[in-house]
This record gives sequence, C-alpha cells and structure tokens, in this order.
Amino acid sequence: MAKDKFAIGIDYGTESGRVVVVRVRDGQQMGAAVIPYPDGVIDEKLPGGPRLEHDWALQNPADYLLVLEKALPKALREAKVKGEEVIGIGTDFTGSTPVPVKKDGTPLCFLPEFRKNPHAWVKLWKHHAAQPEANRINEIGRERKEEFIQIYGGKYSSEWFFSKVLQVLDEAPEVYKATDKFMECADWIVWQLTGVEKRNTCSVGYKAMWVKGKGFPAKDFFRALDPRLEKVVEEKLATDYYPLGARAGGLTPYWAKQTGLKEGTPVSTGHFDAHVAVPACTVTEPGSLVMIMGTSICHMLLGAERQTVEGMCGTVEDGIVPGYWGYEAGQSAVGDIFAWFFEHGVPDYIYQEARKLKIPFAAALENRAAALKPGQSGLLALDWWNGNRSILVDVDLTGMMLGMTLATRAEEIYRALIEATAFGTRQIIEAFESKGIHVQTLVACGGLPEKNRLLMQIYADVTGREIRLAKELQTCSALGAAMHGAVAAGRAGGGYATIGEAAKQMAHIQKLSYKPRAENHAIYSQLFKEYQVLHDYFGRGANDVMKRLKALKLQQAAK
Amino acid sequence: MAKDKFAIGIDYGTESGRVVVVRVRDGQQMGAAVIPYPDGVIDEKLPGGPRLEHDWALQNPADYLLVLEKALPKALREAKVKGEEVIGIGTDFTGSTPVPVKKDGTPLCFLPEFRKNPHAWVKLWKHHAAQPEANRINEIGRERKEEFIQIYGGKYSSEWFFSKVLQVLDEAPEVYKATDKFMECADWIVWQLTGVEKRNTCSVGYKAMWVKGKGFPAKDFFRALDPRLEKVVEEKLATDYYPLGARAGGLTPYWAKQTGLKEGTPVSTGHFDAHVAVPACTVTEPGSLVMIMGTSICHMLLGAERQTVEGMCGTVEDGIVPGYWGYEAGQSAVGDIFAWFFEHGVPDYIYQEARKLKIPFAAALENRAAALKPGQSGLLALDWWNGNRSILVDVDLTGMMLGMTLATRAEEIYRALIEATAFGTRQIIEAFESKGIHVQTLVACGGLPEKNRLLMQIYADVTGREIRLAKELQTCSALGAAMHGAVAAGRAGGGYATIGEAAKQMAHIQKLSYKPRAENHAIYSQLFKEYQVLHDYFGRGANDVMKRLKALKLQQAAK
Repeated sequence: MAKDKFAIGIDYGTESGRVVVVRVRDGQQMGAAVIPYPDGVIDEKLPGGPRLEHDWALQNPADYLLVLEKALPKALREAKVKGEEVIGIGTDFTGSTPVPVKKDGTPLCFLPEFRKNPHAWVKLWKHHAAQPEANRINEIGRERKEEFIQIYGGKYSSEWFFSKVLQVLDEAPEVYKATDKFMECADWIVWQLTGVEKRNTCSVGYKAMWVKGKGFPAKDFFRALDPRLEKVVEEKLATDYYPLGARAGGLTPYWAKQTGLKEGTPVSTGHFDAHVAVPACTVTEPGSLVMIMGTSICHMLLGAERQTVEGMCGTVEDGIVPGYWGYEAGQSAVGDIFAWFFEHGVPDYIYQEARKLKIPFAAALENRAAALKPGQSGLLALDWWNGNRSILVDVDLTGMMLGMTLATRAEEIYRALIEATAFGTRQIIEAFESKGIHVQTLVACGGLPEKNRLLMQIYADVTGREIRLAKELQTCSALGAAMHGAVAAGRAGGGYATIGEAAKQMAHIQKLSYKPRAENHAIYSQLFKEYQVLHDYFGRGANDVMKRLKALKLQQAAK
Repeated sequence: MAKDKFAIGIDYGTESGRVVVVRVRDGQQMGAAVIPYPDGVIDEKLPGGPRLEHDWALQNPADYLLVLEKALPKALREAKVKGEEVIGIGTDFTGSTPVPVKKDGTPLCFLPEFRKNPHAWVKLWKHHAAQPEANRINEIGRERKEEFIQIYGGKYSSEWFFSKVLQVLDEAPEVYKATDKFMECADWIVWQLTGVEKRNTCSVGYKAMWVKGKGFPAKDFFRALDPRLEKVVEEKLATDYYPLGARAGGLTPYWAKQTGLKEGTPVSTGHFDAHVAVPACTVTEPGSLVMIMGTSICHMLLGAERQTVEGMCGTVEDGIVPGYWGYEAGQSAVGDIFAWFFEHGVPDYIYQEARKLKIPFAAALENRAAALKPGQSGLLALDWWNGNRSILVDVDLTGMMLGMTLATRAEEIYRALIEATAFGTRQIIEAFESKGIHVQTLVACGGLPEKNRLLMQIYADVTGREIRLAKELQTCSALGAAMHGAVAAGRAGGGYATIGEAAKQMAHIQKLSYKPRAENHAIYSQLFKEYQVLHDYFGRGANDVMKRLKALKLQQAAK
C-alpha cells in the first residue's frame, strides 16, 4: 500500500484562522489548530490609533500571517504529518474583505505613514460604512442597466468590493492614490504563500462585477461613479483571473521554512468560505442545496444554466464548482435571531425550570418548544430581524410577529422564530424552483445543525425535503480548502484532477438525516402561504411601514 | 353647623365586595371595608359539585350577602358613623351577571335540588361558554335587522344577558323551567336590601336589548331564537325599569338589624360598576371621556344625542347619567397585556438591574422605557392580545408587533405595548369624533393610573389631550354608588336632587394631570397613522390571518 498523502486547508474566518491537515485518500482529518486573531474584529478603535465611526469593521493582515506561522506547524504536529507528506495547500477567506497594498503586496497599514489611517487597513466583510457608495453604485448601475445589477439580485451591497474601494477614494484620496492594488484577502494570502499574484474567479465574480468572458463593466461606468475611478481595473486591480482549484504557484522558500512544508508545495487559487464548503458537503452537481447554517444562512446551489433567480447574492459561472453556474442566496440572520431571543426574550420561569432539571436554559426552552405541534402556538413571524438578504435584498426590513394572546408562552415565541427562519429558507427554495432549478435535497453544515435538532426537523418539515448533514459540520470550509489543495496538486502530484473527483473521496455525509413528516409538512404549507402573503405585503411595497419606522427611529435616536 | 350626613356605597367587583362610608357634603371617604368572596370566581368546579367546562365562570350569591353582613358594619365602625347618620345606600355590580331566582328572589342554587346544577348559579360577566347562543342571537338579529344589533356596535356578546339565558334553556331546560325570574345581580341585590323588585334601566339597556320608550325586541324575535323563549320577557323578566338614582325602596327590617342601619334608609336602583364611576370622576355632562383603566379599559362618554358610533359596547339613553345618551366602549386587554409581558417577556438583565438598584423589576423596566423618545424603538404593535372590543368588536383578533431588530431591547418592547394600547384608545376617540361627539378631555380612574406614570404620559401624548385623574382612583365605583345613594335620599332626605348636583359636591379631581407634549404628539400622530393602516388591514378583512391562525391553533391543540 502506498504511503498516505495529505493536504492542508486554511480557513480564514471572522474571528480566527483554522488549519486542518487532511488525508487525501479519504478526507480524514488528522490534525487541526485554531488561532484567534490577536486584533480580532477592529470595530471601535485602531490599535494605537483613532476611534472608528459606527458601522466600521477592519482587520489586521498581520493576524493572517500569524495563522500560517503558528497554527500551520501546530496542526502538522497534531496530525503527526511531516512536511514532505503534504501534497497541496488550499485556503478560503471571508469576503468581500479587500486590502489596499503596494506593488510588492505590502499592505498599506504596514507602512508607518499609513498606520493610523483606518482606510489603509483591511475592510472586513461586515464593514457597513460604505452604504452611501453602494447607493451611488446601484443608482448609476440601474440607470445604465449594467449587467451586475442583474447578477446580484438587483442590488450591489455595501459589503462588497467596489463599495469599499469607492469609500477609500471618497474619504481618503491619499490612501487611494498610494494604493497600487486593491485585492481580496482571499487572493492576497495566496500571493503571500506563493510569491505570485494570481486572483481567483469566485471572489471577483461574486463581489466585483466580473463576468466570465466579458470582464468588468466598461470604463464609462467607473467614470460615472467618479472620474478618478475610470481606469481602476487597469491601474489598481488585475485583468487575469484563475479558476478554482487551479495551481496558483508553489510555496515560497520563506513560508516553507516558517511552516516546515516543502518549498514548491502546490497552492490552490483563493476561495470564499461559504463557496468552498459546497464540495466539502459532497455537492459538486446540481440538485442539492447546501446550507451553511450559523448566525446567518448561506444557500449555495449549482445550476446547469444561467437563470435570473430573484434575490440572489450572486450568480457566477464556475463560481462554486467549475462547469456550473454557482447560485448564492442567503438569510442575513438565523442563529443571530435565536441569540437575540436568548438574551432579550427569555423569562424567569424558563431559567427556573432549567435549574430544577439541571439543564441549560436553551435546552429547557427547546424541550418545551419541541412538545408543540405545528400551528399550535397560533403565532407567525417574519424573520427579518437583520433585514432580508434573499429574496427581497432589503436591509431596511425588520422583524414581525403576530398571533400573540394572553396565553402565549416563551417557548411558543421561540418556536415561531425557528419556523419563520425555515419559511425564509423555503421562500428561497421556491424562488429557485420557480425558474426550473430544482432542489431535491438539502445538505447542511455549520454550527446550528449540531446545536439544534428541533430546528433541523422543523426545516425538514417546512421545506418538505430530507436534510442530510456533512460529516465535518463545523470544519466544512477548512476541509473544502484542503480538497482544493489536493486538486491543485493534481493526479500526478498525488491528488485529484477535479473537485468532483476529490469530493467523491474526501467529502462525506453523516448517517443521521432529518426526514420531513407529511402531516407536519401539510400544516406548515398552510402556514407558509400565510407567511408569503405577509412577506409580500410588508416586503414588496404594499405597506412600507417597516422602512418608515426605521427612518423615524434613526431620526429620533439622532436628536 | 348642621350635623354631617353620610351615604354608603357598595361595590360588587369580580373578586370581592367593597363598602365605603362617604360624607355627603363633600364626598370624603370616612371608612371602608373589603371582603373577598369566599367562593371567588368559580371556574373549575362547583363547591361540592361537578367540574365545570372550559370558559365557565360562576359565582355564589351567598357571597354577596356576606359583604352586607360583614363589610358594611365594619366600614361603619371604621368611619365612626352611626346607622342613623346614613341617609342613603347605593350599589354597583359587575355585569352582565345574571342569576335565576324563584318568585321570592331565592336563587335556584340555594335550593338543594339545584345545588349541583351549574346553570342554577350566578353566571359571572366573564362566563364565556354561551358563545354558540350569542352567535345564534347575532345571526337572527342581523337577519331581522333588530335594533339591538346597532346599539351594540354590530354584535351582541356571549357575556351578555340573553346569551346566558339562552344557554340555560339549551343546556338545562329543567333549570329554565324552574326559574321564575332571570335578573341581573345588580337588581337582585337591591331587591334583597329593600324587599322590592325594581330593576334599573342601565343594566337592561346595556345588556338586554331594552330601549327606552320601546322596550324589548318583539316576541317574534325571541320565538325565532327558540319557541320556548317567545314570552321570556313577560314570564321571566319584568316590564318596568327605573332610572338611575331613583329610590328603589327602603332598607328592610332584616338588613337594618344585620347592618346597624336604620330601617327604611333609602336604597338607590342598581347600577353597573363602570357606569357608576362616571359621575364619581366629576363627569355628568358631554365632553369628557372617562377611562376606567385596569386589566382592561372601559371608555364612558355622554352625548346629547344618539349617534351610531362604530364598535360601541352599547349606546343607551339615560344609561349613565339621566338626560344623556350613555356611550360605552372598551379595550379588552390593557393592564393584562403588561401583566403578560411581565410574566412572559422580561429577560434576566432587567432583574439584575432591579436587584442592583434595589427597585422592583417593573420599575427598572419603566425607567428604561421612559428614557426612550417616541418612535425611537422602531416598534409598532396592535394591542389585540385579548381580541378587540372597540371599535372592531372581534374576539378572534390577536396581537401583532413589528420593527424588531437584533438590537431591540426588552424596554422597547414594553414601551411599544403601552403605546399600542394608547393607540387603541385614540382609535376609540376618533370613532366618537368622526360622528361629531367631541372628546375634549380625558378623566382616568382605576388601578393603572396610580401604578404607571409613563403610561399616563404616553396616553396624553398619543391622544393629544390632557388627562385628569379622579381623586378616588381605586374606589371610584364605590364612591359613585354612594353618590347614587345620596340622590336616592333626595334633598329632603339630606342628599341631592340629581346626580349632577351630587357630583359637584362629592366628586373631585386631583391636582396632578398629564398634559400632552406637542412634539411627542406630532410623532405619535405619525405612528398612529401606521397603526390605523395595520388596524384596518388585519382587523377589517383584508387579511384574516389572525382568525385563520387561531382556528388552526384550536384544531392542533385538540388533536
């Protein structure tokens, strides 16, 4: 029997970086290490610098390098794997998370003269201060009927690449001028590892208006945004983009020395965290919707052809798996809504019961909620506590609940919140189905499926579909990154020729699955009709009360 | 100076009876006593008898007599008032609270052969088991275009007199047959005190379809309900009804002996508790809306003429103060909604803060809520946790709240609930105003105004009207009863000729009042418009989701 080979996956999350060492023949995780970023999410004040305004969220790129330095060798040691046994490296990153750099890749925030300028730092995906810029982009994009408006479900987000670049130009023209390249950290980290700047098609397709075979919007568009932006692509970006799983280059001598890996070890092009999870959930063909379930849900689906599906975060050719159109949809708050309820809505009798039964209060709540039948609470909610990402793409929508009586109890409210998020997912599924993109089964990964069995059963009952679970629920992205590392190595290098081949061997599904119960599905279908009526009434302009209340709230809070 | 004279007010509430001894010249309360009814609200099982079904609520008339025996002498002792110094007695009662009795006034439930039959007992106002009968009454009433349908805002309630009589006939024909008279306890207690059966116009006007100058609906109507009911008025009720404040008779020798009062002391005709509070709030003319604010709110208004105002509980000539049309409207849950929230919605951090500050948790919540500006929560609610009494008259409506975000806190929800009930009151005021019945100021009594200053200020701000407070906030009904006792005595007897005269001397307003703040009123008027749109959308048939959810809930709970 040939000696085992290994691949490394490096998953750059919001709070920490995770490295896994994975056996190439079967995907078995041999070792792992997690490093929380020392500077974390910088949303109040720059390290040693000025305070930040509301809605800012930055990161320090030095923290990403620390993950390579510290976590990579640690994971290897835990796995008892030697550097020469590693055949490939893959990475994934949050996005859009752009960094302004010099020609040689040095982030501007590393330079003393820019250290105290917040615009010189990494703008994390959840930096929301570029909303005015996003509004301008959308306005001009719609006027000019730019294709990207359609690709992004009718709206370009303040979280995305050009909103953030434009904010730099608006607020810190000196930083804009000093920047040689704006790039996704997904690509920056690959450049660091290989010494070669090779940007990936996923990031640029989902966040930067790039379309395969067509490239970026025309110069006219950028000039309309700001004359100084006319040549932004040529001057500050790149024109070549490389497919997922392609070999970006080999590991540099520096990082080989730092990590104990072999110089020249193949490194895959960069990738986004949600997208890389799809093949790690065994999905490399159309028909299965992957749900990455945590504080929010990302819904990832492959399609054989391009369709305009309402409310997509993006529809990108080769954007998830080469050869297919990658559809990305999402719900902006799911676990976050339950966390909100746990903090702000749990009454004393739940805590008392939990103490009596010696279980966590969340378990007491879940037990009571699980004892209810669908429809028994009499409650119905709209799950818009953090706006609606898909299919309405509207951050100004807010939560709604109705049906409360003097007999309504906390567990009924909790269950109604879970059900509302499940209806939100069903709404997304129906948007796909209405365009003939079929969703046969669901595959879940992320933190929620492990924590909350009631939730998973409700999702199965509401959607009427079986939900299977990825084996590596919580480390799906890291596994996906490692799988891309194995593809970068190629068959000749001991890896795989395609991500489909890699998925067949390395990705696995749990035996446990949640099957829909016909009786519950029938009741939930009745409730879902009610949800849809309210969804459209509050979400499609019949009554914009939520937006007016939000505007009044801001006005009153500012007084 | 002439020696002071006193009047006695006896207030029969839901849980207890209260007796006050009041100085006639200025309404000063000299003494009081409260007796909780030993059998309380009988809603689970008859004393020594069978279990009751859901929605039943009975009382034992023996408990009412106990109030006379025990509380009346106690109040006199506390007041240091002698029996001969008392010039008149007035009473008030919950309603509709009918009792089946024999010819001599003996309640059927006092007879051994009927003791274990629930239908032989008093059906308390909140007995809700006669809904099928109420439905039949409404159906036939609407078909026949009976006037009472209009008087009662389009709907005759399951709580009211004929619904309960019809339930006896339907379910216990033997009790119906053995009953010589069905009567409101408001009249029964006066019969006990005086030995004379003299029924009052208020009870029969608000609860039993009686119209001044016209009487009851025709025999045809009752025959249509049930052939056995054709002659119900002649056989089981009475045809003569006496105005409020009239002298029903003098105290019997028996009760004079039991209580220490003089034989023949004038006793006023019976009265309802909410209605009798109006003159005790100083209101005996049109223009001031009296709000009796507690678990629910009763809104009482006098009008110079009859108008069909949407959603009234009743519009009765001479029904509150002789000479005027008495309008009664109401909100079925107000204090009850806050009590619900206190039990089911208050999170741990409020309790922690309360412990730290050594204040009750409700105070901690109120302090935080009071720090918010109108509109600042971004929340808006419909106050239908117990249905909507006025102006929609629909028990199947339920609560709604919208505007929730991940940053929404408990005190914001609490404030939104208070605001919602204030919008409910404004909706009632606007219903009056739309018919030219003006509401200049508000006068409040009941338990809520004392407990909750924030609530009172919000009501002033929302309605844009000054709210004055009755001096005797919590004992307004008992004072009103005593005032009617003084009117029954008449001028010659040391009392007053009219209730208006009595009110001028005996009823008082506090110095404290709540004045609307223009800036807040403007914001609340903006929010009220939003409330109205949702009120009509969910309440007037555009989307009957609340009713459908309630039906589904009952269906699922029954499985």
